[in-house]
Amino acid sequence: MSLLIIGTVAFDAIETPFGKTDKIIGGAATFIGLSASYSVKPVNLVAVVGDDFPQADILLLEEHGVDVAGLQIKAGEKSFFWSGKYSQDLNSRETLVTELNVLADFDPLIPDAYQDCKYLMLGNLTPAVQQLVIRRLVNRPKLIVMDTMNFWMDIALAELKQTIEMVDVLTINDEEARQLSGEYSLVKAARVIMAMGPQFLIIKKGEHGALLFHKDEIFFAPALPLEEVFDPTGAGDTFAGGFIGHLAATDDISFENMKRAVIHGSAMASFCVEKFGTERLLNLTKEEVAAREAQFAKLVRVEPLA
Amino acid sequence: MSLLIIGTVAFDAIETPFGKTDKIIGGAATFIGLSASYSVKPVNLVAVVGDDFPQADILLLEEHGVDVAGLQIKAGEKSFFWSGKYSQDLNSRETLVTELNVLADFDPLIPDAYQDCKYLMLGNLTPAVQQLVIRRLVNRPKLIVMDTMNFWMDIALAELKQTIEMVDVLTINDEEARQLSGEYSLVKAARVIMAMGPQFLIIKKGEHGALLFHKDEIFFAPALPLEEVFDPTGAGDTFAGGFIGHLAATDDISFENMKRAVIHGSAMASFCVEKFGTERLLNLTKEEVAAREAQFAKLVRVEPLA
Repeated sequence: MSLLIIGTVAFDAIETPFGKTDKIIGGAATFIGLSASYSVKPVNLVAVVGDDFPQADILLLEEHGVDVAGLQIKAGEKSFFWSGKYSQDLNSRETLVTELNVLADFDPLIPDAYQDCKYLMLGNLTPAVQQLVIRRLVNRPKLIVMDTMNFWMDIALAELKQTIEMVDVLTINDEEARQLSGEYSLVKAARVIMAMGPQFLIIKKGEHGALLFHKDEIFFAPALPLEEVFDPTGAGDTFAGGFIGHLAATDDISFENMKRAVIHGSAMASFCVEKFGTERLLNLTKEEVAAREAQFAKLVRVEPLA
Repeated sequence: MSLLIIGTVAFDAIETPFGKTDKIIGGAATFIGLSASYSVKPVNLVAVVGDDFPQADILLLEEHGVDVAGLQIKAGEKSFFWSGKYSQDLNSRETLVTELNVLADFDPLIPDAYQDCKYLMLGNLTPAVQQLVIRRLVNRPKLIVMDTMNFWMDIALAELKQTIEMVDVLTINDEEARQLSGEYSLVKAARVIMAMGPQFLIIKKGEHGALLFHKDEIFFAPALPLEEVFDPTGAGDTFAGGFIGHLAATDDISFENMKRAVIHGSAMASFCVEKFGTERLLNLTKEEVAAREAQFAKLVRVEPLA
């Protein structure tokens, strides 16, 4: 089923306690696209880069089934660049550099061929741009998933709320859920946020798993306790890509299937953090992914009493 | 099966964002005992209080099936007193007052009638005192569970390690697991700690659930997302009491049954935090506990694809 994703395609430079990288390919849409590509192809992409973006990286996306007809390349401009440094325990990070560059006036043009969009994933971006994408689609997609962050709650709350009202699934982390709702209890926070519009809410808790809310239902997916966590960059986007990829591939948006999508997204994210940037997402096999999903099931399984 | 618990019976004065208490009954053994009493009776108790400890509170323990023959009452001395204030989000707390009083020279005398101990729960105390209890039991219990905290890692590490070597199950939180092992990854931390002696390790993550490790197996129990969290005091002890209570009642220390014990302990802890101190643990029904356990199962359940 046709999947459209929008978000940043960018350069990241990352420093973790285990090493550092020069500029490597990053950005929300990159992680979302690569992750979703394990479930469904093509993944239609609307994004913008400068002409400093390597052809090889664009080819990399294409090789993974990402359609780049919607990827604008701005002559004479530079790609979005983010640089960050993680704390010793990887639980916090400091942004060292943010250069918006091409992102400053990103106009998300949607190729006609993408108008059949049934599943839409709005990666973290200015809420106004996310909203514009929804408005430019002639037919409303069957499912719209939106990721956002505290930054927009701080500087563009009204716009953010307008956009949230238009989507079906919102994904944010626990701190952001508390900020957006003004409630400490995540159960209460979820109720407040779902009253803003989305029928489903996913609260991402990083190494502590993810919660899926819908009406009075709650589902919890643990994060896999990992031997090595190398670089958390992109884990949330990889989760989102796996989540919507699974839904698009199965074309089933029941709560029960969303649970499976959360598990699949969590499994994809658990790979992502094992290497720098997108590296671990480039060459996974179906068997590896299935084995990882089975580990999630095993982690919480209790045999019924005989 | 005979259960013996050791730990503090004390006064707590608690301040949370939702209110504050005067001196109320608290202490690790109090929470452990009340929680375990829902699974097995009697719960034999070795602890010490001063003669300022109200007869009514002792009666309260007795009414819940806690045998107080091992509770020493020191004439002319005062009970252990702890006072603390929780942060706005309940995730951290400041200790305002710690008065050791009777605890300073606690000699854990074990009544002869407690020598048949098959299940032993060592609540958080000086490791030397915990160790003394093990040495004073003529026959080694079938299962020894030990709770401890970072404080002992800071000031009595050698003694602590000696005691840890003697137990079967260690329960600590995630930060403490990292401190004790020197490993950030909880998977690696668990391996290091189990090599110190315990065959089983439980890492408590508060609102993020609990992990049970044994050899290469990992089990994860989520914490129930709660509408109201009122007072976290005693939640870890309530968990431990529910855990060992379930094991003692079923007399089955297989990994599979330990999973059920973790779920039961988590359910008991989820009640504990709903009111101040021990209040919520005083009048639970079997039906309430069973319903809460069912919620834990439902929270992570994914129906297999048809």
